[in-house]
Amino acid sequence: MAYLTTPEDISTLLKYDTFLFDCDGVLWQGDVLIPGAKEALAFLREQKKRIIFVTNNATKSRKAYKKKFDVLGIEATEEEVFGSAYATAVYCSTVLNLQPTDRVYIIGMSGIEEELSAEGIQYTGGSDPLDCRAGPYELDAFTDDPSVKAVIVGLDQYLTYTKISKALQYLVRNEGCHFIATNDDSTYPAKLGILPGAGSMSAPLTYILKRSPVSIGKPNKTMLDCIVAKQHLDRHKTLMIGDRLETDIKFGIEGGIDTCLVMTGIAKPEDVGGPNASDIKPTYVMRTVGDLVQLADS
Amino acid sequence: MAYLTTPEDISTLLKYDTFLFDCDGVLWQGDVLIPGAKEALAFLREQKKRIIFVTNNATKSRKAYKKKFDVLGIEATEEEVFGSAYATAVYCSTVLNLQPTDRVYIIGMSGIEEELSAEGIQYTGGSDPLDCRAGPYELDAFTDDPSVKAVIVGLDQYLTYTKISKALQYLVRNEGCHFIATNDDSTYPAKLGILPGAGSMSAPLTYILKRSPVSIGKPNKTMLDCIVAKQHLDRHKTLMIGDRLETDIKFGIEGGIDTCLVMTGIAKPEDVGGPNASDIKPTYVMRTVGDLVQLADS
Repeated sequence: MAYLTTPEDISTLLKYDTFLFDCDGVLWQGDVLIPGAKEALAFLREQKKRIIFVTNNATKSRKAYKKKFDVLGIEATEEEVFGSAYATAVYCSTVLNLQPTDRVYIIGMSGIEEELSAEGIQYTGGSDPLDCRAGPYELDAFTDDPSVKAVIVGLDQYLTYTKISKALQYLVRNEGCHFIATNDDSTYPAKLGILPGAGSMSAPLTYILKRSPVSIGKPNKTMLDCIVAKQHLDRHKTLMIGDRLETDIKFGIEGGIDTCLVMTGIAKPEDVGGPNASDIKPTYVMRTVGDLVQLADS
Repeated sequence: MAYLTTPEDISTLLKYDTFLFDCDGVLWQGDVLIPGAKEALAFLREQKKRIIFVTNNATKSRKAYKKKFDVLGIEATEEEVFGSAYATAVYCSTVLNLQPTDRVYIIGMSGIEEELSAEGIQYTGGSDPLDCRAGPYELDAFTDDPSVKAVIVGLDQYLTYTKISKALQYLVRNEGCHFIATNDDSTYPAKLGILPGAGSMSAPLTYILKRSPVSIGKPNKTMLDCIVAKQHLDRHKTLMIGDRLETDIKFGIEGGIDTCLVMTGIAKPEDVGGPNASDIKPTYVMRTVGDLVQLADS
């Protein structure tokens, strides 16, 4: 673990070709840009570095996420944004090899639907108004559908008893039906506190089935495998930059790439040094991505 | 473990004063009475035995549950019915010692509300139409309320993101806020299959908080403690009769009373004898409660 403080230290990072960025806590906090983040990204682009944004947020498609970058004035293309909804859709098409006649049942929102459509995968549930209505569910209303080969669970603000019940039927009745979560974050940080995250949406099914879903997003290596496959990355030349040891840094370590922790988000100095430090050790520790701008100035 | 087959065997049971009956799988299956069940109960009443019906179903109050008995033609008083909603309310008033100025937040249905009202405990959530509406929840809408001393979670067919979000706020913001589940059944048997049960409703909060709720219903001894306290039972003279080893029989064992397994519900012969038998051993095994009628005839 190396602390990067001087411009000379920081220039070490230029040996990497590709930079994977977590967003919240690294590039922005809520809706406010971290000072120097925009300039740091511009500098890396000048150096012909490849930039990829890696987010667990599955409620937005890449297209929708791109808009957030636009609003904040950060240059980004849709292809550079890698969300867990997209990774989940890619996982369905390439790893599960779902066919045009197959379907998935969604507990989740439009982000997953848009990405599945882009991969040519049919779905039910999700934003279907019938499934989004709170109220009792009777099994008389359930029709067996062996074409449903997977249940995908992401953050769903329209979670209902109907959705949990239907997902359960597919998982117990359809032999080999896959149980997939976009990510296992238990909560997500809102402006005024924490709210239930994608991982807590799959918790009822996990409890019933006594098995966990295959989780796609950070820190699981599935998402990195998808990025590497789609972008043809050389892992030895790729660096993951993030603010959370348990998700971002673990994600890099599990995926076999080097990592850099920044201190502008969740991780605190005592998490990386001292008696109570985490077992998860990043390759580098840097104060903020804004420090990369020192290289441009030096 | 004794198998009760002859009238002489079965007459052993008459040494008990109080008979706790699980209902589904013991007295009825769905909406159909088990042959002889009604007559067996009548015989026990003739013998001046005390009868108590013990159910984990928290969606119904004792009053509502009594109606089911009436429809099936089984004699029962409201005082003889002991549901997990009632036990939860009793737990709040006697163990947690909640005061008239305290409140609880409910993820659950009218059964819990009615029983809490009967115990003089104020509540929010539950059947409140605002909380039963599917859709996003913003923390701007949340008002801190330190009077909320507990969150109670039971089966809720109107489960919403709002309810999980609000329950979470109380549990993390109100110091010492109790986290209570009516029971931890992951599913319940419906006519055409299984549907998510009370335990799966608390699973999102368990996942987020990394701690389990205090669970009141079978197999946890809290419910038996409530029954014993309210009915002044002598545990040595009390027998629990049920069809499930993991809930009913475990419930009796944990509560220090004798148990009798019947084979008209979930448990199968191989669960009690042979190489794959369960570790949970009832005091007695009987084919059906209907066999008690043999005593009346003998």
